[in-house]
Amino acid sequence: MLDAASFRDIDPGQRVLMGPGPSDVSARVLQAMSAPCIGHLDPYFLSVMDETQQLLRSLFQTQNALTIPVSGTGSAGMETCFVNLVEPGDEVVVCVNGVFGTRMCDIVNRIGGKLTRVDAEWGRTIDPQAVRDAVKGKSPKVLAVVHAETSTGVCQPLEELSAIAKDCGALFLVDMVTSLGGMEVSLDRMGIDAAYSGTQKCISCPPGLSPVSFSEAGINAITNRKTPVVSWYLDMSMVSSYWGAERKYHHTAPINMIYGLREALRIIAEEGLEKRFARHRLNHQALVAGIEAMGLSMLVPETERLPMLNTIRIPDGADDVLVRKALLNGFGIEIGGGLGALAGKVWRVGLMGHAARERNVFLFLSALETILKTQGVAVKAGALEAASAVYSQG
Amino acid sequence: MLDAASFRDIDPGQRVLMGPGPSDVSARVLQAMSAPCIGHLDPYFLSVMDETQQLLRSLFQTQNALTIPVSGTGSAGMETCFVNLVEPGDEVVVCVNGVFGTRMCDIVNRIGGKLTRVDAEWGRTIDPQAVRDAVKGKSPKVLAVVHAETSTGVCQPLEELSAIAKDCGALFLVDMVTSLGGMEVSLDRMGIDAAYSGTQKCISCPPGLSPVSFSEAGINAITNRKTPVVSWYLDMSMVSSYWGAERKYHHTAPINMIYGLREALRIIAEEGLEKRFARHRLNHQALVAGIEAMGLSMLVPETERLPMLNTIRIPDGADDVLVRKALLNGFGIEIGGGLGALAGKVWRVGLMGHAARERNVFLFLSALETILKTQGVAVKAGALEAASAVYSQG
Repeated sequence: MLDAASFRDIDPGQRVLMGPGPSDVSARVLQAMSAPCIGHLDPYFLSVMDETQQLLRSLFQTQNALTIPVSGTGSAGMETCFVNLVEPGDEVVVCVNGVFGTRMCDIVNRIGGKLTRVDAEWGRTIDPQAVRDAVKGKSPKVLAVVHAETSTGVCQPLEELSAIAKDCGALFLVDMVTSLGGMEVSLDRMGIDAAYSGTQKCISCPPGLSPVSFSEAGINAITNRKTPVVSWYLDMSMVSSYWGAERKYHHTAPINMIYGLREALRIIAEEGLEKRFARHRLNHQALVAGIEAMGLSMLVPETERLPMLNTIRIPDGADDVLVRKALLNGFGIEIGGGLGALAGKVWRVGLMGHAARERNVFLFLSALETILKTQGVAVKAGALEAASAVYSQG
Repeated sequence: MLDAASFRDIDPGQRVLMGPGPSDVSARVLQAMSAPCIGHLDPYFLSVMDETQQLLRSLFQTQNALTIPVSGTGSAGMETCFVNLVEPGDEVVVCVNGVFGTRMCDIVNRIGGKLTRVDAEWGRTIDPQAVRDAVKGKSPKVLAVVHAETSTGVCQPLEELSAIAKDCGALFLVDMVTSLGGMEVSLDRMGIDAAYSGTQKCISCPPGLSPVSFSEAGINAITNRKTPVVSWYLDMSMVSSYWGAERKYHHTAPINMIYGLREALRIIAEEGLEKRFARHRLNHQALVAGIEAMGLSMLVPETERLPMLNTIRIPDGADDVLVRKALLNGFGIEIGGGLGALAGKVWRVGLMGHAARERNVFLFLSALETILKTQGVAVKAGALEAASAVYSQG
């Protein structure tokens, strides 16, 4: 028998979320999420949906009508883009330089797409020439790439890949889970046909929704399908009827999560995109300056680094798990370990959204220095001074 | 350009949610959802996951190890059960007497199952003999039925269908979106192999999660698949590694939604299942007594009615939409209209979870009586007295 009294009140404490996501959530967002739940066809909620779409379009920098939060986490957004655009037998080219490109391939295989992989070393960008070679003589339906590889910290330039997609008549599909809200991601200017993101990275809303956007060419591909979308839940032709003018019932929207997303997007609009992106860059530069001053090194070459996800090589003599435990238990700081081939080799330090701030950079640098010294790892002096210098120039 | 200042604070007011869901959410649940977001592998969150599973097993009345909330709404739970159990070419028998049985068929067709439908009139139960006839000479992999048809208000008895499933070697799959938390649904005693629900009905948590549970036979069917599950996001062989002992990263769990679900389940455990089910029955009986005293009639015959979803025939002379608008705008009460073949013919009045209470029954009866009279529809006197009489006996 279950003893109801043995379950205590929710009390997660207050972490400093500097991992690969979720990131710290503003109290305003949490407050919005705790507003009374109302019906998913209530006139007030319909206005919340419209505003959320408006705010999302502004963040994606697009006029795309079909711009909505999918009722699932970032991976549901990935699946949404592929299952709607790809039919069995369609050729799909996927660029792979980390966990999330690998996941794209898994999905393409499950839904019967004809997959061509373009692989690059984990921790480096995809070479556009390799993509050009891969599509030669082919007419892929989709060319897919991850903008911000959360598993490695690599930032993929999109312009050249977009041009290659246009040249070979492919739809350009981009994973923006970690980049959206933390750096420039203009869908319209960059010629992106389908993009998805997550709420728990640079948007700083709890996980649970996945903003997606489809261009007119993307919508045409959905409209002209010969086979039904294999997922009923993620079928955009139906989901868009609920978010569009028809307001046709499909599934019950996650009301309170959408309250939270709207508030998080409102905070972004108040800050302004330029200022927000600059803030992410500045804090990233300060963190890197501190890390390098300590004598540690970054996995990714300087020109290929993401601002919001920093992969630090674990120095010789440091114990991956013990260091992360000491950060969490001693300082309340969450960072991420390496994934896949990078497990045990790197730490992933997020500076995302609400968490991308000076006080977190200083807290992390001083905590890491202290812990490494305690564990007998040689660390050079001057990390905080190096970070300070960046801020005073910034 | 977007004007950030034009977006106001979230302020949905306070509705009385007596539609087909979402239902009223307790302030305790909203408060739990607004606790600080932490990492999805944080030791504290792992304990929240374990407790949520414990509480869910108690509510489903099962020992099933694989009992978790899927990271999507109830329809994602439906899709989860079918995509994991059904492979292309597998025979599936689906009972259809409303919108949600119809949806099951849609999903089976999309994933390449060989579908056999057993149809019944909308507003009536499925006749077990028709199911027996349909499976004769067949070896279906799955027999699927909706326990509580939210579109009609019909309660499907499960025992005989479960026996038929066992006889023909089929897995018994049951939609419990609207029944779970409001009436008896013992998975183990009823021999159910896969079940899914939603959080926004009788659990009284906001929408966004779908509790699912698989029996050992269900898990074996997943383990012995010859083809991969078509959905990466809903693939239980991977999702269960995150919820199980391995804690293997799959996708980022909707942290704050799970806080809310745990609190809603804790409230249910505190009340006790017997007491909770009795409360749903009593309020249902009072509502029906009042409705019938007014001279209106129920769609579903007495023995086939759900306690938590009441379908009332719209009386002659009443305007469906105008009445619902008057309820919402004058009294803050949300009820549902009819779906599909029942559009314009019935109102759907929910008495779910936190909303299944005396004050809502009285508010609704008095509001409806007032509105109908105002609109010139003949209504008999005595609704409140009839409801009162039920409570004083109850």
